Amino acid sequence: MTEAGMLTRVDPVGNLFGFVAGSCPETKTILLGSHLDAVPGGGIYDGAVGVIGALEAVRGIREQGLVTRHSLEVAAFIAEEGGDLGGTFGSRAFVGEVPTDMPDEVLGQYRLSIADVEASRGNTDSYCCYLELHIEQGPVLWEKGIPIGIPTAIVGISRYKVRIVGEANHAGTTPMINRKDALRAAVRVLDRWYDLVDHAHGFVCNIGTLKILPGSVAVVPGEVEFVLELRSTDDATTELGAREFEEMLHTTVAIPSQFELLVRKPAVRMSESLVNVIQTSCAELGIQYLLMPSGASHDASPLARHIPAGMVFVPSVKGVSHRKDEFTPIDDIATGVEVLMRALLGADGRIP
Amino acid sequence: MTEAGMLTRVDPVGNLFGFVAGSCPETKTILLGSHLDAVPGGGIYDGAVGVIGALEAVRGIREQGLVTRHSLEVAAFIAEEGGDLGGTFGSRAFVGEVPTDMPDEVLGQYRLSIADVEASRGNTDSYCCYLELHIEQGPVLWEKGIPIGIPTAIVGISRYKVRIVGEANHAGTTPMINRKDALRAAVRVLDRWYDLVDHAHGFVCNIGTLKILPGSVAVVPGEVEFVLELRSTDDATTELGAREFEEMLHTTVAIPSQFELLVRKPAVRMSESLVNVIQTSCAELGIQYLLMPSGASHDASPLARHIPAGMVFVPSVKGVSHRKDEFTPIDDIATGVEVLMRALLGADGRIP
Repeated sequence: MTEAGMLTRVDPVGNLFGFVAGSCPETKTILLGSHLDAVPGGGIYDGAVGVIGALEAVRGIREQGLVTRHSLEVAAFIAEEGGDLGGTFGSRAFVGEVPTDMPDEVLGQYRLSIADVEASRGNTDSYCCYLELHIEQGPVLWEKGIPIGIPTAIVGISRYKVRIVGEANHAGTTPMINRKDALRAAVRVLDRWYDLVDHAHGFVCNIGTLKILPGSVAVVPGEVEFVLELRSTDDATTELGAREFEEMLHTTVAIPSQFELLVRKPAVRMSESLVNVIQTSCAELGIQYLLMPSGASHDASPLARHIPAGMVFVPSVKGVSHRKDEFTPIDDIATGVEVLMRALLGADGRIP
Repeated sequence: MTEAGMLTRVDPVGNLFGFVAGSCPETKTILLGSHLDAVPGGGIYDGAVGVIGALEAVRGIREQGLVTRHSLEVAAFIAEEGGDLGGTFGSRAFVGEVPTDMPDEVLGQYRLSIADVEASRGNTDSYCCYLELHIEQGPVLWEKGIPIGIPTAIVGISRYKVRIVGEANHAGTTPMINRKDALRAAVRVLDRWYDLVDHAHGFVCNIGTLKILPGSVAVVPGEVEFVLELRSTDDATTELGAREFEEMLHTTVAIPSQFELLVRKPAVRMSESLVNVIQTSCAELGIQYLLMPSGASHDASPLARHIPAGMVFVPSVKGVSHRKDEFTPIDDIATGVEVLMRALLGADGRIP
């Protein structure tokens, strides 16, 4: 950033910013960026492409001898993958969305305090928009052979804890007919649910963890606990899916069961005018694009609640992400940077 | 045992024996007993009833002024529940069935060596029969209100590791149709399997553990591993059940799967003449009985492969076992002891 002539600063939680002044000091700043952290065992594209891409876009503009009216700022947010800090930690700190009652022990592990979090809150009123380049992390663009995706919304995520309570018993001496097998009940409801999901539209769902108690080969499962995750760009659809699952659970399972909300993150809409700016940029460059939802959360999620936000997706080969073999060819990234740069100039021209 | 006039000894692995000489020194010894250890969190009836019951039967005979022709020996075997020593450890040491290549580290945890195991091997030729009183650990006698069960065989146990290999992927960005969800495949085959089991006869089965990899709420299950356990008194039936499961696995699941034998313990038949002696004892005492399989393994399992063996079951209230609330009323235990004593005298009379 320094080499690119930017004024840099690091806020107390560790977000890095690089600033270039525009020609009209009274206008608001255009923010660009993403994150540099990765999941354990993850690849090098998820996040980093957006930070380096933003830097390249700003450098490209300067190399062409252009000066934007708005000042430009590139952000490298920390802890987007989050872990025990929760996802999009750096960007949530920036917009003031980290809960003030966050435990000291959690923050302390990273040598942070709630005072650091509060001091990292930016003045969101001083920004006119946020643009983020990111890999798709899914197979849609790669399968269709389309170089650019333009997210219209980022899915909301709801997670529910499902508990089915049977009766643990000796797996040899208890006749099949006497068993209250919690796993048997769970596979019945899940098999039916997966069938329904095939015919459902508008959401995706996942059961990624499942625990059997007591969990011994020779004991009939007494209890099964799993987490149902639903994602949709339409919160009402997510809610409807959850109600359908709950009803199916209660009608299918004859033994006691519980269905409890763990997390509800609403869907976030991208700015329509920024989507339009990005579409226009693609059209002007003669680059094919696809309007699509984002199935993953991004720094753009918290930011979009405070600053108009837009995103540019580039393809992920085979849709692989959060794995070491995550890959996007450099030419595809260059195309993304080109679109980002054009959109940046477009926004600079359109926003007063 | 000492109070009851028995000569006691403890073998190197910790099995305790109490001996009373019979009137004919040239005859073989009648062995009675069970175990005193319990599973963690278990009750006080599983095992102990058979040791105390055997002691009571011997005391009862002596209190009535009777002397058996055969010498009598009461055994309290150790580690029937086994843990990392494997089940029926003490009785397997007694009959010489503990593998000589058992790791020193495992034995060392209990301050035992393979030399101790070998020195604990008894002379099985010196025993004419083994009788064991035990709680049923299942609900059959309790539900039917029958005070005595006479096992004709102890089930064989086969365990198979089942592995279903899909593809871990992002649970938000991967369209439902692109997923190779290992859990979805697993619930499909298990739901069908449980349906078939309802119509199958001759075996019981259990899936008591199930592991999802990577096991994250936001990642599509890449791999599922579980253990299928089958139990039957007929080894061919167990084998047939396993083949049926394997076929169902391969025909139902479109993604790669593996089916691997972990353990195969053959079924063990009780001595027909001892079953007959116990039946006659019940009839003479006017006590109702039920011929039944034993769904659980017992010290009688390894012993029956070397010495003719018979068992007497007493009811388990609600079929509960391996739990703190395992219970058998004292009157039911007394009935069991009465049958055991009568059978002991019957065997003493019948066996040359």
